[in-house]
Amino acid sequence: MSLAYNQALEAWKADEVPVGAVVVVDGEIVASAHNEVESTGDPTAHAEILAITQAASFLGDQRLNAMTLYVTKEPCPMCSGAMIMSRVGRVVFGISDPKMGFLGGAGDVREVSTLNHYPIVTSGVLSEECHALLQAFFAEKRKK
Amino acid sequence: MSLAYNQALEAWKADEVPVGAVVVVDGEIVASAHNEVESTGDPTAHAEILAITQAASFLGDQRLNAMTLYVTKEPCPMCSGAMIMSRVGRVVFGISDPKMGFLGGAGDVREVSTLNHYPIVTSGVLSEECHALLQAFFAEKRKK
Repeated sequence: MSLAYNQALEAWKADEVPVGAVVVVDGEIVASAHNEVESTGDPTAHAEILAITQAASFLGDQRLNAMTLYVTKEPCPMCSGAMIMSRVGRVVFGISDPKMGFLGGAGDVREVSTLNHYPIVTSGVLSEECHALLQAFFAEKRKK
Repeated sequence: MSLAYNQALEAWKADEVPVGAVVVVDGEIVASAHNEVESTGDPTAHAEILAITQAASFLGDQRLNAMTLYVTKEPCPMCSGAMIMSRVGRVVFGISDPKMGFLGGAGDVREVSTLNHYPIVTSGVLSEECHALLQAFFAEKRKK
């Protein structure tokens, strides 16, 4: 998670909402990305989507069952859905998001019983640090 | 929707699950795409995600409030979430998906009250044709 946090720091440096993600399999990092919505102008360029695309490319496999995705903030509806579609084995996130989080915070994509995959989810890892980073980013934004 | 259907046909020709999408604003088509999961090896390369990325790029705006996205099949959890994150104004889809659809079929992303956007949704447009296309594709796959 500290590497995902570092990715979030990189996002801040690029004036992006500081969210970072890494994908790990067998102790090896196979993808790392941060939010790039502002720099690309692409509303789908969230850290998790970019990390999943990278990981699938690296492994030559669309199905990421063996992987763990670490992300600093609870995934949004789109990214939570992407965890299902790419069959990520495990998702570990930092801070919960009670407004937009879709792995338990605001809603939960896993509540629908007909999906073809359900990742294991762990939350609250490095959450204070991830929260502080987002708070500091938005506090700075409000000053501008 | 017939243009989205044509995109789905193109997907089939490329041996992809036949789902197509177009994005329209003020009567002008600003994006058209089909499923590219197999050819790219990217589990996030659904027609809707690709069409949203194209539309945002074409318009130089991440927020697609003025747009209508037509797609031949009800969006999955990831793509339904992408409609929220990109603030697509209206979504029109063909066939419902009672297993994976997340705009009313299996689940509904709009049921969560804390999101920052809710698209208008219309379903059942050209649904018989869209359904027949998917059925024919999978029937052919089973023969192989």
